[in-house]
Amino acid sequence: MTIKRLMSEHRYSGIVVHNGVAYFAAVANLKAGAPFREQAEDVLRRVDEKLAAAASDKSKLLAVTVYMTDIRKIAEFNEVWDAWVSPGNSPSRHAMEAKPPIATHEVELFCIAAV
Amino acid sequence: MTIKRLMSEHRYSGIVVHNGVAYFAAVANLKAGAPFREQAEDVLRRVDEKLAAAASDKSKLLAVTVYMTDIRKIAEFNEVWDAWVSPGNSPSRHAMEAKPPIATHEVELFCIAAV
Amino acid sequence: MTIKRLMSEHRYSGIVVHNGVAYFAAVANLKAGAPFREQAEDVLRRVDEKLAAAASDKSKLLAVTVYMTDIRKIAEFNEVWDAWVSPGNSPSRHAMEAKPPIATHEVELFCIAAV
Repeated sequence: MTIKRLMSEHRYSGIVVHNGVAYFAAVANLKAGAPFREQAEDVLRRVDEKLAAAASDKSKLLAVTVYMTDIRKIAEFNEVWDAWVSPGNSPSRHAMEAKPPIATHEVELFCIAAV
Repeated sequence: MTIKRLMSEHRYSGIVVHNGVAYFAAVANLKAGAPFREQAEDVLRRVDEKLAAAASDKSKLLAVTVYMTDIRKIAEFNEVWDAWVSPGNSPSRHAMEAKPPIATHEVELFCIAAV
Repeated sequence: MTIKRLMSEHRYSGIVVHNGVAYFAAVANLKAGAPFREQAEDVLRRVDEKLAAAASDKSKLLAVTVYMTDIRKIAEFNEVWDAWVSPGNSPSRHAMEAKPPIATHEVELFCIAAV
């Protein structure tokens, strides 16, 4: 079975696809200090973009891990998520607070999706 | 390949199955403030329930991530885990301390299992 | 589909392989207090060893989660990682700070790889 890497750099690949499954992380691509809600919206746009690059879409998400720098903002994240998620096709999801390499990245997702 | 979602709500699904693999998170379903050991036992009962719903069982676990609010309780968690795990069929496992959305959920698991 | 467990103990298995995919965690196997760089180098040696045991290698890594006790050391980890990663075959990767069961384990990886 072949391995397909997209948006690949030396350190890591933006997405890796193997045996019908895509693995990728996503962070917001905004200037430092952007409001949390904008980051939440942008990280989900990034998920859409990455899934599109792999010829998939959000209705095929299998599992999502949500890492946040301040877990008290989960309600605000959920508002953005609930408006975005594919109705009837929600993935498994779990969330926790964890400190990222770049402190201004307030929310990061790790996704596993079917392609 | 089809995607099967069980215990599905708008925000997330309780389990998602794709290509012979199930993805799910589990937390204890007890009143806030239940002792840690009871939470540990209950979260593993929840894993059993979810696996049963997917026509699988604990002997088919592939990988488990353990998130705990107080990693110093890992020895107590291990006592409960060791009595529960399928002998000869243990999954890959790693554990760390991380703050969950609901502070009284002292232990949460993310599981990948064969079905 | 069969499940193959390697380096298996009662509590967890060192690697689990199913349907062409290997799941495993890796920590450095050094005496407590070893310098961070040596731990980073050793954890990647452990990844190589585990992949070899599963008849795979680092060019087949799909996704890596990096857990560190001090995320400020990510630049130092990246130096070691960049010298080690298979050129043109980098996995998806995300990193965060999280407290492990054994405090002297400054870096732990969770890996998903094709075999």
